[in-house]
Formats: sequence, structure tokens, C-alpha cells
Amino acid sequence: MSTDPISLSAAGRALAAMIDHTLLKPEATARDIERLCREAIQYGFASVCVNPALLPVAVKTLEGTPVIPCTVCGFPLGATATATKAFEAGLAASTGAREVDMVLAVWALKQKAYSEVLSDMRAVVESVGSGCGVKVIMETCLLTDEEKVTASRLALEAGVQFIKTSTGFSTGGATLHDVALLRATVGTRTGVKASGGIRTRADAEAMIAAGANRLGTSAGITIVTTP
Amino acid sequence: MSTDPISLSAAGRALAAMIDHTLLKPEATARDIERLCREAIQYGFASVCVNPALLPVAVKTLEGTPVIPCTVCGFPLGATATATKAFEAGLAASTGAREVDMVLAVWALKQKAYSEVLSDMRAVVESVGSGCGVKVIMETCLLTDEEKVTASRLALEAGVQFIKTSTGFSTGGATLHDVALLRATVGTRTGVKASGGIRTRADAEAMIAAGANRLGTSAGITIVTTP
Repeated sequence: MSTDPISLSAAGRALAAMIDHTLLKPEATARDIERLCREAIQYGFASVCVNPALLPVAVKTLEGTPVIPCTVCGFPLGATATATKAFEAGLAASTGAREVDMVLAVWALKQKAYSEVLSDMRAVVESVGSGCGVKVIMETCLLTDEEKVTASRLALEAGVQFIKTSTGFSTGGATLHDVALLRATVGTRTGVKASGGIRTRADAEAMIAAGANRLGTSAGITIVTTP
Repeated sequence: MSTDPISLSAAGRALAAMIDHTLLKPEATARDIERLCREAIQYGFASVCVNPALLPVAVKTLEGTPVIPCTVCGFPLGATATATKAFEAGLAASTGAREVDMVLAVWALKQKAYSEVLSDMRAVVESVGSGCGVKVIMETCLLTDEEKVTASRLALEAGVQFIKTSTGFSTGGATLHDVALLRATVGTRTGVKASGGIRTRADAEAMIAAGANRLGTSAGITIVTTP
């Protein structure tokens, strides 16, 4: 399979550079991940985002390219033990992940155990070390606006690189309201990644206009090739 | 809140002893888990099944009772690294879990990497040690019948205590066909746990008639109190 670059419009190229080309279905195989990686190289996506068991395949396939290997942690429920999240994130970084998307301890936020929410994020940030960025997935569809703001502030305190709306496995994905709210809360101190339900060029452009600077989607090719 | 026993019919008591009283929603708090545990004590359920982050709450609340603390591993996608599943399962056992429900490496089964499927299960079985049972969740809705049989045989080889149909987080739950197929494959060498979509007494009785000897459900109280 070719990895020759695909010619895109200037707008398409700019969008591609903001997309995490994502495949997190549990039944995706190594061959599926290889194809995902080759597409990411061809279209100039920012990263590929894959499950941890397939991360070695992504790291190997992307070697020597500018595409970032990204994986997930405590995914998609966020309800694994902090020690396990830290172990998983450390293993991912040592395997070659350069970004790790962890899920917030939603249960702890819901019971206002903010020190646990914070220490859970900090454990992951410390575990990956300096060569790997951390995104925190809020799972906004489960949160009130107040909880979204609280979680964003705790994420700032934990020193993450991005806050992210959704896993794509819960009851809803990114909304323009949530992206704008997260951006208003963090300003320019972290990135904002919109994810879940982004399927068209119009979806993507609206999310960026609302404040996102990274998009998680499995529809990246459609998004960047729409005229 | 009381933990006095609730009076049930003989049939209700027999059913209760086969039920894993389950709450795996990511937003469930410690208070929700305490209530779940007290219900399990009152109704005589076999176990409570909770996310790993809340396992310490379940262990503490169930102390001195016959109800088994159960948690999940690599849940619900099964696509975490084997080393992470082993870490998570070992941590669960040392925290006090007496049963761990792990998710099969569905991706590996799909690409016929059977030695990986087996070593993934074996790593968890070895990690929990002898005081803790392991159930393997097949996520049958994603598998062909041939794959279900193959996975069941590998689970036997790995030395698990139960094979289980579903996480409840995918595209479908337990079916009578699948329960009968799993039981026919393992005979009496392991238990069969039906889970996902079991909401009524009739559902529960049908699953048992098809070959299940454990049921995972969040509707246990309805099931055991239906006359």
C-alpha cells in the first residue's frame, strides 16, 4: 500500500494537521491499524489514535514520519485505578506514544473528590515523562457545565497539554457549546480537542470556530477531501 | 441504611445466589457502590461487580459478609496491553477482589493471533493468584460462532473459572444461542456467565435454562422479587 502524499487544498491541509486519525473499535486488527497509519502519512494528519494493545503496530508503521503515535488510557470509562492508569500511560510512553489521551475519573468528579481527580491526572502526567503529551478526556456528555469548568481547572493544575470533550463511547460527543466553554475556561494555556460525532467538513470547521485546535475523528479523510 | 435480609421465595433466593449485582457506569460514585453492596447483602446476591477505582469501597462495605467483591479488567474494550491487564488484575486481587472479569483481546482473536489471546488470559490468571477467580468476557456480539468456540477453548486452556458473554457496553448482550453455544463448548469445566440486557425474571430463567450458572445484571432486585 502506498504512502505517497495525497494532494489536498490549502484548507484541507490545514485541517489535516489538526486531526487525530482515530480507530478505537475493540475488533480493529493490526492490519486495520497499519492502514490507518498509512492514511495518516498520506493525508498529513497530526496523529493516529489507537488502543494500547495496537500501539506497537502504530509506532512501527509511523517510524521516521512526522505523524504522532497516540493512544488512550483508562479508556473509555475513566474508572480504572489511578495506579493502573499510571502504569498504562508509562508503558505507552516507553512503547513510543508521544500523546496519551486519558479519561478523567468521572466518578470522583461526581462526588466532588477533587483531590482524587487531580492526583489521578497528575499520576499520568508524571508517568509519561517529558517526551509525551497528555490529553484529559472530560466525557462532557456526563457532566454539568459547572463540572466541566471544575475539571478543566483541575486539568490546568495537573499540567496537561490538552483537554478533550469525549471518548466517542458514551451517550454523546462534542458540542459547540462544550468546546466554547472549555476554551473559555483554559484560554490559551492548553489545547482543546473536540471528539465524538465529528463526521463532516462543516462539523470540523464549526468545532474549530468554537475554539478547538485538535479534532478526534474517524472521518478525517472525508473531512479533508470535501471541496 | 439497613442490611437486614429481605425475605424472598425459594426460587428468588436460588436466583439471587447466581447474580453478580452490577454497576459499571463511569459516573457511579462511592455512595452508589455502598448502596449496591448493601442491596447485595440484603438480597443474597453472589457478588457485586464494580469498576476498579471503586473496588476499595466494595471490599470495605462487604467485609465480613458472604458477598464476593468482583471487578473488571481491560474493560470494556479488551484492547489494553497484556502487561496492563496483568497489573490491573494483580492490583485488584491485592485490594481484595475475589473475582475479576477480564475482557478478551478481541483484536487478537479477529486476526487469529491465538497465542496472544491465550497469553493475555494466562497473564491475568497468573497475576491474580489462587485466591481470586477469573472470568473471561468474550463480547459475543462482535464474534462469529467459530470465534466464540475458539475463544472458549483458549479460555479453558488458560485455566479461567468462567466464560462470560458480554460487557454490556457493546452492540449487544447475552443471547440464548450464545449461552448454549458456550456451555456446549466448555461442558462443566468452567462456569458460564450471561450478561448484558438481562432485565426480567423471564430473561434470567431463560438464560439459566440455556446453560448459564451466573448472571450479570443491574436488574437483580427486580429479577429476584418478581413473584
